[in-house]
Amino acid sequence: MLYLIGLGLGDPSDITVKGLEMVRSCEHVYLESYTSIMTSTSLSDMESFFQKKLIIADRDLVEQGADQILEHAKTGNAAFLVIGDPFGATTHTDLVLRARELSIPTQIVHNASILNAVGATGLQLYSFGETVSIPFWTDTWKPDSFFDKICQNKARGLHTLCLLDIKVKEPNLDAMMRGKVVFEPPRFMTVAQAVNQLLQIINAQTTDDCPVTNGDVCLGVARVGSPTQHIVACPIDQMVNQDLGPPLHSLVIPGKLHPLESDYIAEFIPRNTVENKTEAVVL
Amino acid sequence: MLYLIGLGLGDPSDITVKGLEMVRSCEHVYLESYTSIMTSTSLSDMESFFQKKLIIADRDLVEQGADQILEHAKTGNAAFLVIGDPFGATTHTDLVLRARELSIPTQIVHNASILNAVGATGLQLYSFGETVSIPFWTDTWKPDSFFDKICQNKARGLHTLCLLDIKVKEPNLDAMMRGKVVFEPPRFMTVAQAVNQLLQIINAQTTDDCPVTNGDVCLGVARVGSPTQHIVACPIDQMVNQDLGPPLHSLVIPGKLHPLESDYIAEFIPRNTVENKTEAVVL
Repeated sequence: MLYLIGLGLGDPSDITVKGLEMVRSCEHVYLESYTSIMTSTSLSDMESFFQKKLIIADRDLVEQGADQILEHAKTGNAAFLVIGDPFGATTHTDLVLRARELSIPTQIVHNASILNAVGATGLQLYSFGETVSIPFWTDTWKPDSFFDKICQNKARGLHTLCLLDIKVKEPNLDAMMRGKVVFEPPRFMTVAQAVNQLLQIINAQTTDDCPVTNGDVCLGVARVGSPTQHIVACPIDQMVNQDLGPPLHSLVIPGKLHPLESDYIAEFIPRNTVENKTEAVVL
Repeated sequence: MLYLIGLGLGDPSDITVKGLEMVRSCEHVYLESYTSIMTSTSLSDMESFFQKKLIIADRDLVEQGADQILEHAKTGNAAFLVIGDPFGATTHTDLVLRARELSIPTQIVHNASILNAVGATGLQLYSFGETVSIPFWTDTWKPDSFFDKICQNKARGLHTLCLLDIKVKEPNLDAMMRGKVVFEPPRFMTVAQAVNQLLQIINAQTTDDCPVTNGDVCLGVARVGSPTQHIVACPIDQMVNQDLGPPLHSLVIPGKLHPLESDYIAEFIPRNTVENKTEAVVL
């Protein structure tokens, strides 16, 4: 049996009771470690809570070495732990398909993911449009197609959840050219970095009817679902100065706000913004 | 302290370890019972698992009698249990706002909801557009605005999750006119009922360029996340004949399918469809 078990978003105790029982029944337990990170815990805390040794599954292991996971699942019980919900990433769907081809039974244990926990902002989940991903720009690669989707959502009155880039186990190109494999330290895009890129796109607009402008309120969300969760609401051009602390961060561009939503996010306006620049925060 | 705790979608063991500890620490535990139902459990099983007496919170209690919940949370620990994730419904956001006004601290425990567990279909969550709700039609009230949203999503290549109507504790109008309060038995819209309404709308279209047609593949999903989860993929005009069993049901109208998504949902095509009408199921 192959169990795909969602871990939720905060610490090890965010696993479900059912999920924990399954983990403890498995001989081999893999922890997916390349599409997300657990914000409020360490590997040893997780191992201690689960009472299991965890095998770190990076992208190479899952995409190229899935045979090992599947072999364990064929001959016994194996668990594949995913931060958030198991169906958050395409590669996990692929793993289920490969198990199915080998007639290995699978069982899924769902959990919270950023896609529904973003409800912590008070924005109604039914009013979100398509989710977008904002990638790290380089000097020569500055994709902006996510902006069109934000505009399309906003034009329909819908909110947009922007997932921010994660770079884990990226090879260092200089070292690679010298024939060595050296990995860069992990990088997690902050809300300020995302908004910096967003502002460059907004400022480059040549039409006057762009539905997203510098002064629109946006929400920066950090470590949703953890005890250190932090949410800030302010105009886009002020968000660039906000430090939301350690990862993971996400950005929300609201569409049309319902009065209840405006009431709710009022709490997330930083005090200095309220005191000095209230006029800029029009909900 | 007021805890809002998501229960997930299946049975009592889908609560998180953290959530269970909180429930057991509370003097008063309310179970929200009007926006969803637990598909694979009974009240007594839940009480036995949680080791707590549960107070059923219907719409009247939450919207008009919230003072009682808040009073308990002000003087001690109270928990408000929500099937799925706590932010699935507007009234729960309102409860947090009211607690905030009374300076009652709140803590949220997220969990899976249909909005992310629909990933069990293999459709990528990032490719879903706005979620819609399909209401029960009456002889004189047949709203169809949800169809426009499905079409808008589909035109953009996006999938649509359709949440199906739930009628719990609806007053019987005849009895009400006789001055009595009698409640109708609960009703949960089935996928077949939803598709029946959808077909009436599709058949009434006067343009040839409607992006949604009778022959398009759709997915009926029932009891997602529970051991009796059932998913069927077939053309819309065949879904009307599918019996997916007990509630809750949801309907998914796919947009543009990625090859991996097509591979995944192939498993959900009913055998009789494959044998007799394969040509109709074009993924």
